Amino acid sequence: MQALKDRIAAEGQNLGSGILKIDSILNHQIDPKLMFEMGEAMAAVFRGMNVQRILTAEISGICPALTAGYALNVPVVYARKLKPITMAGPVYLETAPSHTKGAQVNLLVAAEFLHPHENVLIVDDFLASGKTLAALARMVRSARANLVGAGVVVEKSFESGRTYMQQQGFDIPIHSLVTITSMDDGKIVMA
Amino acid sequence: MQALKDRIAAEGQNLGSGILKIDSILNHQIDPKLMFEMGEAMAAVFRGMNVQRILTAEISGICPALTAGYALNVPVVYARKLKPITMAGPVYLETAPSHTKGAQVNLLVAAEFLHPHENVLIVDDFLASGKTLAALARMVRSARANLVGAGVVVEKSFESGRTYMQQQGFDIPIHSLVTITSMDDGKIVMA
Repeated sequence: MQALKDRIAAEGQNLGSGILKIDSILNHQIDPKLMFEMGEAMAAVFRGMNVQRILTAEISGICPALTAGYALNVPVVYARKLKPITMAGPVYLETAPSHTKGAQVNLLVAAEFLHPHENVLIVDDFLASGKTLAALARMVRSARANLVGAGVVVEKSFESGRTYMQQQGFDIPIHSLVTITSMDDGKIVMA
Repeated sequence: MQALKDRIAAEGQNLGSGILKIDSILNHQIDPKLMFEMGEAMAAVFRGMNVQRILTAEISGICPALTAGYALNVPVVYARKLKPITMAGPVYLETAPSHTKGAQVNLLVAAEFLHPHENVLIVDDFLASGKTLAALARMVRSARANLVGAGVVVEKSFESGRTYMQQQGFDIPIHSLVTITSMDDGKIVMA
């Protein structure tokens, strides 16, 4: 997606250790118009697949999931990291390591919002090691829903998340709007 | 906003102690179409006020802020509760009590995303005690920006957040899409 590539080239910062700072676009400040274009671009890829629900993880996955959900006209559910007191009843619980916070984080989805046999598309901000995507995919499997694919805003292909997903048995189409092939030497190299 | 009132009447649950569960609409599952209508309805109120930026707080404020920002075509910034490692440089820091999590939470906005003299609209999911709204308003004041108003999805008027905002010196227009006037006796009474 050229508009997003241009913005990352202009505003992205390589903080080292594979950490990409794009706070001005995705994680802290949001350009709503660009976010809508992202959602539309993601929806365009999966439109023929009868997606019935989008699953994402808070926090940074919420905006691309909302805009993709708007374009596909399907409900969105975002996994919570902390259980709010309004969450009652059974939950699907998975854990994944946080790339930017260090520790393991919980991902919780109320069982009432993931239904058996539904076609679920996972949307997230980053695909790096694939561990968050795999945790979301395990939730879909636990709910006996059908995982039809995953759409991510930025893929860091050098962290081999696609391979990890396959190794975990999730052989699904994955679409990334922008692929970063290297962050060596302080650079941000996009495919 | 009638569509939202209807949904709250159908799906909202009064959990007691003033806690409203509307996870199926706002805090966990999202109906993107309804969320867009909410953003549009909020934007319609503030359209003449030359809004230049929207400020909200993660997590549940993000979706209404994004859709209002889309309708007004202005950038959105959401206050973070934990400092991500991508956040460098000076920040505005305020604290507010969390209604649904108990403890005090930090609200952090990188100084680079709040500019002096900018016209800022605050958007949030709930107006209850007004403490989160006031914390966001203090940030706007610290940044020497102009606070033009606040838009919230659901106001619990019996918790007197408007009065609190005035007592704190924030005499701004506040618009709520739905006002709940009482949650006594397990009911949800809307204006």
